[in-house]
Amino acid sequence: MMEHNLAHTIALLERTPAALDALLRDLPETWTQRNEGENTWSAFDIVGHLIHGERTDWMPRARMILQFGETQAFVPFDRWGQERESKGKSLGQLLDEFARLRSEGLGELRAWNLRQEDLEKRGQHPALGVVTLSELLATWAIHDLTHVHQISRVMAHQYREDVGPWNAYLGVLKCTGHSAPE
Amino acid sequence: MMEHNLAHTIALLERTPAALDALLRDLPETWTQRNEGENTWSAFDIVGHLIHGERTDWMPRARMILQFGETQAFVPFDRWGQERESKGKSLGQLLDEFARLRSEGLGELRAWNLRQEDLEKRGQHPALGVVTLSELLATWAIHDLTHVHQISRVMAHQYREDVGPWNAYLGVLKCTGHSAPE
Repeated sequence: MMEHNLAHTIALLERTPAALDALLRDLPETWTQRNEGENTWSAFDIVGHLIHGERTDWMPRARMILQFGETQAFVPFDRWGQERESKGKSLGQLLDEFARLRSEGLGELRAWNLRQEDLEKRGQHPALGVVTLSELLATWAIHDLTHVHQISRVMAHQYREDVGPWNAYLGVLKCTGHSAPE
Repeated sequence: MMEHNLAHTIALLERTPAALDALLRDLPETWTQRNEGENTWSAFDIVGHLIHGERTDWMPRARMILQFGETQAFVPFDRWGQERESKGKSLGQLLDEFARLRSEGLGELRAWNLRQEDLEKRGQHPALGVVTLSELLATWAIHDLTHVHQISRVMAHQYREDVGPWNAYLGVLKCTGHSAPE
């Protein structure tokens, strides 16, 4: 197993809330509330999804690995759980909540002072089978990036017609999305 | 021609420098200096490219449309011009420079007080032919998003192995990039 540089993982995880805040706060709803069509997500929905992940996915699963190892499978993640998180809230409220939950989660993670041998501990994913704590934490960071990737694509979609002939040159308009349940 | 909401375009353009700053500043070089392989760009290279666009592409072309209309083609954009912009500089310096140039460009754009009839003015792209000022400005904003999309993908690539079996679920790791010269 390769060495996991936890400091690098945390450095990325701690920046995502501020990056999304700088990109999205007070942006017109043209950009933040529109999606790519039926059963797709807007930037607003995606921030709700990230919040739901903080509450039910990443740190809860890390705790399960440390507590139960492979003996107990993770609770499956609800990919539509953001509906409960975001109902009646503004995007600004969601951005605040994401930042707060992320900060709390990373505070707890840092306090664990994990060593390489801890990172090699194994857990049971309900669909993927055996996974390590190291893989879980790396995935937490890359899951942020997958949704930054998605947000940029969903926003770009709103100007698909406006760019005229330049659509041929803009890679983000050619991305068809590649996500699957986690 | 559809109505262009210039305020929406500017709202996005003015947020990109702060969003990239929040994501990238002081991040370990694992994330910012590595690329996806030969002849591909790191996040550092991409910020240099955005700077080169501020200097030579977007506002210079907008000025040309207003001054010369279709009678004079734009200067072709140098997709590798960032090498000159970024040589010997730190990522922090590039982020500062991008923010400054973007702010100056948007200050000039706002001062023009463009009306719908101005946005319909036409220019000559060296490869695409006739384009409008409206399309140019919309493309400026979506070009930002195409590079946010790319940065998230290039960074995710660095943890391709670390995420283990979760790679099946992370859309950003399936994106093969879709860019072409502008």
